[in-house]
Amino acid sequence: MSYKIGLADTTFARMDMARIAEKTLKENLEGVKILRYTVPGVKDLPVASKILIDDGCGIVMALGMPGDKPIDKVCAHEASQGLIQTQLITNKHIVEVFVYLDEGKDEKELLDIVKERTRKHALNAIALLRGRNNLQRFSGTGRRQGTKDVGEL
Amino acid sequence: MSYKIGLADTTFARMDMARIAEKTLKENLEGVKILRYTVPGVKDLPVASKILIDDGCGIVMALGMPGDKPIDKVCAHEASQGLIQTQLITNKHIVEVFVYLDEGKDEKELLDIVKERTRKHALNAIALLRGRNNLQRFSGTGRRQGTKDVGEL
Amino acid sequence: MSYKIGLADTTFARMDMARIAEKTLKENLEGVKILRYTVPGVKDLPVASKILIDDGCGIVMALGMPGDKPIDKVCAHEASQGLIQTQLITNKHIVEVFVYLDEGKDEKELLDIVKERTRKHALNAIALLRGRNNLQRFSGTGRRQGTKDVGEL
Amino acid sequence: MSYKIGLADTTFARMDMARIAEKTLKENLEGVKILRYTVPGVKDLPVASKILIDDGCGIVMALGMPGDKPIDKVCAHEASQGLIQTQLITNKHIVEVFVYLDEGKDEKELLDIVKERTRKHALNAIALLRGRNNLQRFSGTGRRQGTKDVGEL
Amino acid sequence: MSYKIGLADTTFARMDMARIAEKTLKENLEGVKILRYTVPGVKDLPVASKILIDDGCGIVMALGMPGDKPIDKVCAHEASQGLIQTQLITNKHIVEVFVYLDEGKDEKELLDIVKERTRKHALNAIALLRGRNNLQRFSGTGRRQGTKDVGEL
Repeated sequence: MSYKIGLADTTFARMDMARIAEKTLKENLEGVKILRYTVPGVKDLPVASKILIDDGCGIVMALGMPGDKPIDKVCAHEASQGLIQTQLITNKHIVEVFVYLDEGKDEKELLDIVKERTRKHALNAIALLRGRNNLQRFSGTGRRQGTKDVGEL
Repeated sequence: MSYKIGLADTTFARMDMARIAEKTLKENLEGVKILRYTVPGVKDLPVASKILIDDGCGIVMALGMPGDKPIDKVCAHEASQGLIQTQLITNKHIVEVFVYLDEGKDEKELLDIVKERTRKHALNAIALLRGRNNLQRFSGTGRRQGTKDVGEL
Repeated sequence: MSYKIGLADTTFARMDMARIAEKTLKENLEGVKILRYTVPGVKDLPVASKILIDDGCGIVMALGMPGDKPIDKVCAHEASQGLIQTQLITNKHIVEVFVYLDEGKDEKELLDIVKERTRKHALNAIALLRGRNNLQRFSGTGRRQGTKDVGEL
Repeated sequence: MSYKIGLADTTFARMDMARIAEKTLKENLEGVKILRYTVPGVKDLPVASKILIDDGCGIVMALGMPGDKPIDKVCAHEASQGLIQTQLITNKHIVEVFVYLDEGKDEKELLDIVKERTRKHALNAIALLRGRNNLQRFSGTGRRQGTKDVGEL
Repeated sequence: MSYKIGLADTTFARMDMARIAEKTLKENLEGVKILRYTVPGVKDLPVASKILIDDGCGIVMALGMPGDKPIDKVCAHEASQGLIQTQLITNKHIVEVFVYLDEGKDEKELLDIVKERTRKHALNAIALLRGRNNLQRFSGTGRRQGTKDVGEL
């Protein structure tokens, strides 16, 4: 079995998220083929993701680290809207992995969140690529990425 | 009479909303066929719903439990915009069933809201599937889902 | 002369706005044909309006009474965006008639606003249906619906 | 040389902005043909503008005076989003001329802003219609419409 | 090797950003062909960018300086949404270069930001035009435009 997965990332981010994603994907999906696309910031991710899908990717991970100012939140919001539109145009999932620069209480915690969120969403991407019922056993179990799962009520 | 209904749900939610929806649908619509699709979070619901409709569903329920932080509200807003766009592309209804994690005063109340809102919207989905005048007798009667109806003025 | 007008309304509203609209339309447009479509809430109005237009309506009135909580305002905003998109897809007007549950100082005033806004917008719908210059004599005259006209500067 | 320009305006506005626009256009563009379209409020402008372009207008001015309440700002925002979408669908410019009812310190100042903004944007519309380099000599010169130009840094 | 790059700018901006961009592009991309398009404000940039792409540009820089009032932020937000939509329609990148009039503590600093952001994004545009892996060596290195790079965590 062979899959083509796109990784769209940014030069704005403060960590090479695509490298983490690539490592997790390769360890967990035999024969996976990775296509990378690097853009300046999160607002450039929608069209990059679209081009990756047009080039044959079955799924894309859109990786970014928006800043901590109000304008950065607006940028991330616009990027997210664009990523959803891209999915509706292409009929493919784009797993958005955004970590805000003010999410951690210090750089150490921020790094941990980035690594964990990217790794867990890479596993989500594989599951989604395998079909629509692969995540069903986790339905409503309060799963989180980058922070602790909160569990079922 | 036979109908195909899609249920798109998330692993982020803290309750298996699709199970409640499925139970209500089966009890109230003979011969209903259910297609499930489980995604990580609410922002993944639009394309999942679109694919369910492309696979023959006459209507989809998009089930999610957004978090209680400001960023979670933004995510839900983006998801809702995407769900409306999906409906306009497909000409099918998507019944959005979102329950915010901070809606109830405690876990017990939250659970009750989730169950009741899901159940009532499953009935709405059946009515919408049956045609555009099935809910007309309730026009302007102040119906709510998950909280008490407020009634007509 | 015969016209087909769509009325999309909700079960969430606290008054049967479609009945008021229908009465005004029938009194003021001979031979008018009304198609109704009732949905749960305002976010379901865009696709309902689109289907009404696809079924031959030359114009649609989208009738709703959004709630008074912040989340309700967001829902109404999403609905409005969807209604504008629907108009751009179909090249037909959709007259949005939204009355917020917190617009009146009491139930009596709220009722008056609903009736008056619905009635006036029904007349607007007829004018728009008749052609693009039917409202021109009122250009810039500060007309309001549901509250007093404010007049020209 | 002959041009067809659309003027979409509202009955909500408190001044006949289209009359000012028409006067300026006629004084400054020989042989101009004006098509008018009057709608109730700013949210009705996107589809009206689209229809004007479909009817042969090379450019449209969308004229409106949104109210001074928070809900009015949201309406104007939705209208603006729709006008941008319309431009992307049609590949034509729509010059948005919005004046908020709370922009002036009194009615006199408000009137002056409306007149000046409409007049200056009518000239912009003519320049845009003539080609993509007609405004180039003013690039980055801090031009404003309705208030004083702020100039180059 | 020959490339066609579009520069869309505004008369609202307080500096001729296109001139800076053009200089950087010409110094760094031999045989580059520049197409300019000047519009009144940032909300006019999406359709201008689309037309530049339709006229053969492989990439566009959308240059603007939004004002410092709340309404100006909303305008810039709408423009950004439109620019993302344009990219999804055309499958081409549009590098948004927006500098807010309140970004610098004085005019001198503002000028420096404009120059530096425009220059750096012109280099980004060249890199993007050359292919999807040209920026990959900078992935996650915390690059900024107009302010100091923040570096990798």
